[in-house]
Amino acid sequence: MIIILKEDANAEKVALLKGKLRSLGFDIHESQGQRQRLLGLVGDTSILEPDDLMANDVVADVKRVQEPYKKANRKMHPEDTVLDIGGHKIGGGHFQVIAGPCSIETKEQITEVAQDVKNSGAHLLRGGAFKPRTSPYSFQGLANNGLKLLLSAKEATGLPVVTEIMTPEHLLLFDDVDIVQVGARNMQNFQLLKALGKTHKTVLLKRGLANTLEELVMSAEYIMAGGNENVILCERGIRTFETSMRNTLDISAIPMLKSMTHLPVIVDPSHAAGIRWMVPSLAKAAVAAGADGLMIEVHNDPENALCDGPQSLTPEQFDKLMAELRPEVEFFGKTMD
Amino acid sequence: MIIILKEDANAEKVALLKGKLRSLGFDIHESQGQRQRLLGLVGDTSILEPDDLMANDVVADVKRVQEPYKKANRKMHPEDTVLDIGGHKIGGGHFQVIAGPCSIETKEQITEVAQDVKNSGAHLLRGGAFKPRTSPYSFQGLANNGLKLLLSAKEATGLPVVTEIMTPEHLLLFDDVDIVQVGARNMQNFQLLKALGKTHKTVLLKRGLANTLEELVMSAEYIMAGGNENVILCERGIRTFETSMRNTLDISAIPMLKSMTHLPVIVDPSHAAGIRWMVPSLAKAAVAAGADGLMIEVHNDPENALCDGPQSLTPEQFDKLMAELRPEVEFFGKTMD
Amino acid sequence: MIIILKEDANAEKVALLKGKLRSLGFDIHESQGQRQRLLGLVGDTSILEPDDLMANDVVADVKRVQEPYKKANRKMHPEDTVLDIGGHKIGGGHFQVIAGPCSIETKEQITEVAQDVKNSGAHLLRGGAFKPRTSPYSFQGLANNGLKLLLSAKEATGLPVVTEIMTPEHLLLFDDVDIVQVGARNMQNFQLLKALGKTHKTVLLKRGLANTLEELVMSAEYIMAGGNENVILCERGIRTFETSMRNTLDISAIPMLKSMTHLPVIVDPSHAAGIRWMVPSLAKAAVAAGADGLMIEVHNDPENALCDGPQSLTPEQFDKLMAELRPEVEFFGKTMD
Amino acid sequence: MIIILKEDANAEKVALLKGKLRSLGFDIHESQGQRQRLLGLVGDTSILEPDDLMANDVVADVKRVQEPYKKANRKMHPEDTVLDIGGHKIGGGHFQVIAGPCSIETKEQITEVAQDVKNSGAHLLRGGAFKPRTSPYSFQGLANNGLKLLLSAKEATGLPVVTEIMTPEHLLLFDDVDIVQVGARNMQNFQLLKALGKTHKTVLLKRGLANTLEELVMSAEYIMAGGNENVILCERGIRTFETSMRNTLDISAIPMLKSMTHLPVIVDPSHAAGIRWMVPSLAKAAVAAGADGLMIEVHNDPENALCDGPQSLTPEQFDKLMAELRPEVEFFGKTMD
Repeated sequence: MIIILKEDANAEKVALLKGKLRSLGFDIHESQGQRQRLLGLVGDTSILEPDDLMANDVVADVKRVQEPYKKANRKMHPEDTVLDIGGHKIGGGHFQVIAGPCSIETKEQITEVAQDVKNSGAHLLRGGAFKPRTSPYSFQGLANNGLKLLLSAKEATGLPVVTEIMTPEHLLLFDDVDIVQVGARNMQNFQLLKALGKTHKTVLLKRGLANTLEELVMSAEYIMAGGNENVILCERGIRTFETSMRNTLDISAIPMLKSMTHLPVIVDPSHAAGIRWMVPSLAKAAVAAGADGLMIEVHNDPENALCDGPQSLTPEQFDKLMAELRPEVEFFGKTMD
Repeated sequence: MIIILKEDANAEKVALLKGKLRSLGFDIHESQGQRQRLLGLVGDTSILEPDDLMANDVVADVKRVQEPYKKANRKMHPEDTVLDIGGHKIGGGHFQVIAGPCSIETKEQITEVAQDVKNSGAHLLRGGAFKPRTSPYSFQGLANNGLKLLLSAKEATGLPVVTEIMTPEHLLLFDDVDIVQVGARNMQNFQLLKALGKTHKTVLLKRGLANTLEELVMSAEYIMAGGNENVILCERGIRTFETSMRNTLDISAIPMLKSMTHLPVIVDPSHAAGIRWMVPSLAKAAVAAGADGLMIEVHNDPENALCDGPQSLTPEQFDKLMAELRPEVEFFGKTMD
Repeated sequence: MIIILKEDANAEKVALLKGKLRSLGFDIHESQGQRQRLLGLVGDTSILEPDDLMANDVVADVKRVQEPYKKANRKMHPEDTVLDIGGHKIGGGHFQVIAGPCSIETKEQITEVAQDVKNSGAHLLRGGAFKPRTSPYSFQGLANNGLKLLLSAKEATGLPVVTEIMTPEHLLLFDDVDIVQVGARNMQNFQLLKALGKTHKTVLLKRGLANTLEELVMSAEYIMAGGNENVILCERGIRTFETSMRNTLDISAIPMLKSMTHLPVIVDPSHAAGIRWMVPSLAKAAVAAGADGLMIEVHNDPENALCDGPQSLTPEQFDKLMAELRPEVEFFGKTMD
Repeated sequence: MIIILKEDANAEKVALLKGKLRSLGFDIHESQGQRQRLLGLVGDTSILEPDDLMANDVVADVKRVQEPYKKANRKMHPEDTVLDIGGHKIGGGHFQVIAGPCSIETKEQITEVAQDVKNSGAHLLRGGAFKPRTSPYSFQGLANNGLKLLLSAKEATGLPVVTEIMTPEHLLLFDDVDIVQVGARNMQNFQLLKALGKTHKTVLLKRGLANTLEELVMSAEYIMAGGNENVILCERGIRTFETSMRNTLDISAIPMLKSMTHLPVIVDPSHAAGIRWMVPSLAKAAVAAGADGLMIEVHNDPENALCDGPQSLTPEQFDKLMAELRPEVEFFGKTMD
C-alpha cells in the first residue's frame, strides 16, 4: 500500500501516523519526490481500508498495490480449484450444467423437470424454495415444503441439488442440499456469509446487481476466511441503462474472475437476459469466454410458472441447447461429465 | 394493469389467459385497436408481477397503471406520517438531526460525542455496533458490547439512539434501541424486513446503492405489510461513475419519495459524499429540497476513527454546521424541536 | 402508441388533445376501463415523442407499441443486410476481421502492421488519423497526414481501410476511405450523422459508452433516413461500475441488435477490455454470440504506441488469435472470406 | 505521477522506459520498497495518459498525483472567475437565472416568454434553434430562422441570449449570441470545443449524461487551452437506474466542481428532472449547495410545446418560483443583479 502525503503535511502529524502504522506491524519505506512524499507500507495490508487512512489530514491519497483478498487469490493458489458435487466435478477443465425451474411449485413439476433435464445431460438440479421478491405481495416460494419436494426429486433422479438460502436461521434446513446458493441481493449479507463460512457446504455465490468483481471476491473471502473454501462464483447479469432486457451479462467477468481467483466461475444466462430466446446465445458466449459451467432455468409450463417464466426454456428447448453446447464445450477443450 | 397482446396472438391461448386472470379475481376490459388488442385489468394488481405475465406467449407487453405499493402509498394516506422518537417528532414539518460516530469504539468516545452533539442541538444519537464491511479483515464493530456502550450513552445524555441491525437473529438485542437501522446492503434482505415488520420498532430504511426509489418503497412495504408502519426512508447516495467522491447524493429522491409516500424522508450526507468538507453543502441542499431530517457522522478524533473517518465532522465542525442549519430549517418553514 | 389518461382528466382538454392528434393524421381508438381511459393511436407514431405527449396535463402515461425506427427495423427488412467492402462481404453469414493500430504513427508502422494483419488473415485495415482524446494535451492524431499514410498502406497491401471521422467538415478528406467510423463519443453527434446520411460511404457506427441499444439504432436511423443504408453497428463496451478493466463488453447487444435490425453487428474487444490479455476471450465470446465481425487493435510495438498500447496485440499474438478464431467461425457456421 | 513497476520487471526494459521518460523532459525519483519499485515523475505530467504508460510490460500501475487540467484548475487561479454577460455578472457571489423555452417556435412565443421571464426577474433568455433529438423524425428546431427569432426577442427585451450550437460549421451564425451552449451529447465533441476555443464567446458547457466531473473539466480545458477562458459549467442531471424521472441531478457536482475549478457552475433543474413539479425543489437545493445560477425552461403553452413540454414551467409558475428564490439567494449571501 502506498500512502501519498499532502504537500503541506504537518510533520508532527506525519510522525504520529507513522507511529500508528508501525504499531500495527508495518515497515515503512519512505520516498521524497520534488513535490510528493510517499510512504510505502510493507506487511499484510489486507487489514487496512484505504478509506480509513484517507481520514487522516496529512494523507492526499492511498493506493493499494496488493489485492485485499488472500484465500481466494490465484497468486496464493495458482492451480484451478476443482470441486466435486456428488461425483460431478466442476472447475479445472470440468464443465457442469445446472438446470431446473426458478421456483419449486409442485412435486410433479419439480420431478418432471428434474427427469427432463437429466435426460438432456444436466448433472445438477436447481429449484427455489425461498424466493427473494421485490414485492411482499408476490409469490414468496414454498419454503420448507419446497425444500422437501426438491429433495424428493433428488431422490427420484439422483441429481445433486442447488437451492437458495436467504437467512442464517434457515441453515439447519439445508442439510441435504448439495450446493447452497447465495443470491445477488444477499451478496453482501455478511452475517449469512459468515454463517456459511463455518459450514463445509459448497456455496454458489452470485454477484450483486451493481457490485464490482473485487467486491464479489471479497464476499467469497468472507466464506473462505471462516474455513470453508468450497465456493463457486456466478455471474448473473448486472444492472445497466439498457431497457430491452432485464440485466446485462458481463461476459468479461469470466476471464477476469479466473485471473483474480482460483475458484470455478459459472454463468446464469437466464437471469442475465430475462428473455427466453436470448438464453442460447449467451450460454454459448459464456462457454467461449471460458466459463466452468452454466445455470439455466427450465420449466415444463413456462407460461404458468409462478416466477420468472419469461426466461425459462421448455424441456424441448433445453434439450436442443444441450445438443449444441456439448460439441462447443469439447471444441474449447473441456469435459462435461 | 394493461396487457398488450401480440398482433398474431393465438385465440385459444388468449382465452386461457383471460380465464386465469378472471380466476385470480380480475375484471377484464378489452379494447381492440387496428393492430393492437389490449386487456385492461380491474382489481388489486399489486399481486401481479409484469414479468410473470410476460412469460405468456401471447403477451407483447405489460404496463402497470397503479403503483405496486399500498400501505406506503400517499394516495391511500394523503397526510404526512409524523413519528415520535422519545418525544422528538419527525415528519410533517418536524425536522430532526441524528448525529454520532460511524462506529462505537469506547465508552468515552460514544459518551463524549453524544454530549457534544446534544450540546449542538442534535436530538438523536447514532453509532454502529454491527458494521457491514466489504472485507472480512476490516474492523467489524464491537457487536453486543458496542450496543451496551451506546445504551449507556443514551442513559447519560437522554438521547434516543439509532443503530444498525444486520440479521434477524440479533433482534432480541435491540429492545432498548429507539430506531433500528437497515443498511443499504440489506435493503433487500427480505427476511430481515419481514422480521422487523412483526415488531413495533421504528425502522430507518436506507436506500441500496443501485436501487430505484420504487424498490426502496417496496422494501418499506415489506415492513408495513407485516403490521409495522413506523418507517423512515433514508437517501444516502447512490453508486455512479463519478470517482471524485464515494457516492452521488440523489437529491431528487427527496421530493419524489415524498410524492410517492407519506413517510418521513431523511438524508445521510456523510455516506453520500464520503468526504468531510462536502457534508455541509449537501446537508443544506437536503434541507432546501424538503428533507425531514439529516443523519450526520461526528467523531471526536476522526483521524483515528476505526471506520469512515474521512467523512466524519469534528464536534466543532458539527456545531458550526448546526448553527447554519437552524436558520435554514426555519427559512424553509420547518421546526427543529 | 397508447396514451393513458389521468383519472380526473378535464373533458375539454381531452377533446383538444384528440383534435390535435387527429390533425396530425392519427386515428384514435378509445377504451374506457373502470378507472383508466386509454387512447390508442393508429398511424405512423415515429414522429411522436412520448415525452412531448407527457407535457399534457391530462396524460398520465404513454406507452410505445411500435418501434420508433423504420429503415433499420428488421420487421421491415427481414433478411440480413450484406455489405461488400472492396470485395469482402460482411453480414448474412460472412464474418470479417478488421485489424490495425489505434493511431497511425509513421509510414513504416502502418504499412508493416497492415502487411502483418493481412498475412494473418484480416481483410480490412484500421488506423486512426483523427483521435478523440479526453485531454487537449494528449496526442491528437496525425490528421490529414495520417490519412495519407493509411491510404498508402491500402495501396501497398490492397486492404480496404477503416478510419474515424470527428466532424462533418473533414468529410472531403475521406474520399478514398472504405469505411468511415463514427466513434462512441460522437454516436449522438447528429450533424455528423446527417452529413454521412447524404453520402454513400459505409459507416461503422460505434455505440456510446452509456447509450441504450435503441439509441444506437436511432442513430443508425439518422444515417439511413438520409438515404445511406450502408451501416455497420459496433458494440465496444459500455461504462459500468467495474474498475478492473476499461469498459464492460455488452455481449447481449449482439443477439438483441440482430433481432431489432437487419444490419451487420461487429464487436471491438480491444476497446471493451482495454487490456491485451483479455482480447482473445472476448473475441471468442463475440463469435459464439453471433457477431458478424471483429475489430482488433494490433501494433508492432505496443509499449511505445502513442495511444491505447495496453490493449493492442502484437502481430504474433494476433496471428495466434486468428488461428483460433478461424475454426471457431466455421464451427458456428460462418465464413471468413 | 507515480509509476509502480511489476515485481519481476526486466531491468533492461525499465532502463528503456526511464530513458524515454527523461527524453520527454521528466525527472525521475526512484523508490525501492521490499516488493515494489516506484518511479515518481517530476514535470508537467498533463501530457501523459496513465493508460498509455500501462501498455509497457514492466508497469503494474500508474497513479496521477497532479490533476490533468491546468487552466481550469483552482490551484492555478484561486479566485472565482466572474463573467460579465451584457452587464450581468455570474460567479464570485453573483447569481443569474437563465430562462426561456426549450425550442424557439414562433416570434410571438419567444418574445412573449422573453418578456414574461424578464418581468419575473430573469436576466438571460434561453431558446433552442438547433435541437439534438434522439429520433430523426422528431422536430429538429427552426435552425437559422429560430436564431433570428431569438435575436429579435433579444432586441425587444434587451435580454442577452443563450442558445445551443451543434457543429463548428454553424459558428458564423452565432455572432450576436451572448452565450453559446454546448449540449450534453456534445460535451466530448472535441472539434467543436476546439473551434470554440478560438473564439472569445462565453461558452456554457453542459455535462454529458454519463461523464465524470474530471471529464467535464477536461472538456472545459479544451476550450481554455485554445485561448478562450470564458466558460460556464452546467450540471443537468446524469443517467442512473432511476425510472421515475428523466435524469438524476448530481447536486454534489456543485461543491466538487467549485473545488476543482474557478469557473462559474450553474444547474439546469428542468432537464435534470424532466418533470415540471420537481423543478422548484431542485432549484432551491442548487442554490443551497452553492450554485452560481440556474437555467430553467419556461413556456407559455407547455402542453403544446414542440419539445420538452413536461418539464417547462408556465410563466406564472416561474414567477412564483422566482419570488421564492430571491430571498433564498440572499439568505445564502449571493446577489441576483
